[in-house]
Amino acid sequence: MTTVDELVSRKSVRLFTKEPVSAGDRQTILDCALAAPTAGAQMLYSIIEITDPALKTELANCCDNQSFIAQAPLVLLFLADCRRWLDAYDLAGCQPRAPGLGDFYIAFCDALIAAQNTVVAAEALGLGSCYIGDIVEQPERVAAALALDEYTFPATLLVYGHPTTQQLARRKPARFDQDFIVHQNQYRQLSDEEQKAAFASRGEDFDEFIPAFFRRKYNSAFATEMNRGVTKYLQPFRSS
Amino acid sequence: MTTVDELVSRKSVRLFTKEPVSAGDRQTILDCALAAPTAGAQMLYSIIEITDPALKTELANCCDNQSFIAQAPLVLLFLADCRRWLDAYDLAGCQPRAPGLGDFYIAFCDALIAAQNTVVAAEALGLGSCYIGDIVEQPERVAAALALDEYTFPATLLVYGHPTTQQLARRKPARFDQDFIVHQNQYRQLSDEEQKAAFASRGEDFDEFIPAFFRRKYNSAFATEMNRGVTKYLQPFRSS
Repeated sequence: MTTVDELVSRKSVRLFTKEPVSAGDRQTILDCALAAPTAGAQMLYSIIEITDPALKTELANCCDNQSFIAQAPLVLLFLADCRRWLDAYDLAGCQPRAPGLGDFYIAFCDALIAAQNTVVAAEALGLGSCYIGDIVEQPERVAAALALDEYTFPATLLVYGHPTTQQLARRKPARFDQDFIVHQNQYRQLSDEEQKAAFASRGEDFDEFIPAFFRRKYNSAFATEMNRGVTKYLQPFRSS
Repeated sequence: MTTVDELVSRKSVRLFTKEPVSAGDRQTILDCALAAPTAGAQMLYSIIEITDPALKTELANCCDNQSFIAQAPLVLLFLADCRRWLDAYDLAGCQPRAPGLGDFYIAFCDALIAAQNTVVAAEALGLGSCYIGDIVEQPERVAAALALDEYTFPATLLVYGHPTTQQLARRKPARFDQDFIVHQNQYRQLSDEEQKAAFASRGEDFDEFIPAFFRRKYNSAFATEMNRGVTKYLQPFRSS
């Protein structure tokens, strides 16, 4: 498989065999994270490897009770980190201002870009992976469990391992056609006809699909909790 | 080169030859974006391809006057987009709430993950690329130029093209050693000794490097403007 083939065919894997991720594969995944593009070479992130079984279970519970997280052989938290450089500036006597939302933004980008490099690396190594956005839920419990600093933000949690046969056989969820996603020179809202055609391009009936998805996702308790969680994490960055 | 080799050796490229990005390479880059991991297959982003030369120049001016942006053969804006699904919910009569910061968060992740897939694809195709985080500056001008909706956010701008010889010869900036970035089970701040050792691991003298970098980056006018820009873009998401 070429790199492009891997990028196009990769799908999320949530269930893993009991086979551990080898030390070599783990190191390759970390190497690819650390080599990722980063603003001004600052690497405005920290990676927390979760190996403690009790901590894995606590995070699984905090992430909308998704128990597969606790079973994953390799679990990495990508933390947008405005604290490390702040400490460096302090240590050098620079008297830095508190980080703002622009600083948060750059760190969030750095963390996500490094995270996606590990997903691509895992795929190349024959390993599966899955993003866990629910990591922004239960901010009090997550921050306590991981000893997070107020100027850090859990950009994403990723789990990795050897895919089960069932997961390998799973069909990759359909994507919207490019016409509905890629625009020229200006943003534009889709017309009502285009909205329906977009879902038809994924093989879904708009009138049937949308209300059910709305109830399950957008209007869910976990969506409300994610809104609360991110609002809480951003508070220290907003006050500066 | 294997995929992992490409991930490890890839460096940013800002200057391109006059050779255009071929239609086939452009399509491969977009294919890899659209195939990227996305929360619930929602693809909570739009990609705006910037082909209008006057618009390229306006964006280059808005992005801290980095003129190389206007010269890039391929320019893609990755827009976190909470508007498209909001419109779908409205059209289906779901009476959706306004998007909150949790919705922004998921969309931002989707956009950045898709963006990094294009960076990896470009590298595999022999093309260079560079992230432009400055796209969050000058929010009024950028939003006007691109007709952005209030529930969208310019997650990142990327430029692509064939690297010049000089850019190919450029050394990849050093990264911090893994010991200073990867932690086990808990976040921790670095000790003063570790801070200095971290910069030494990049070949830099802490006391010389930090004050100069502080003035050039963290205490710069563009950092202030990025803080203002992101604060402005997040306002509609904060009020819900």
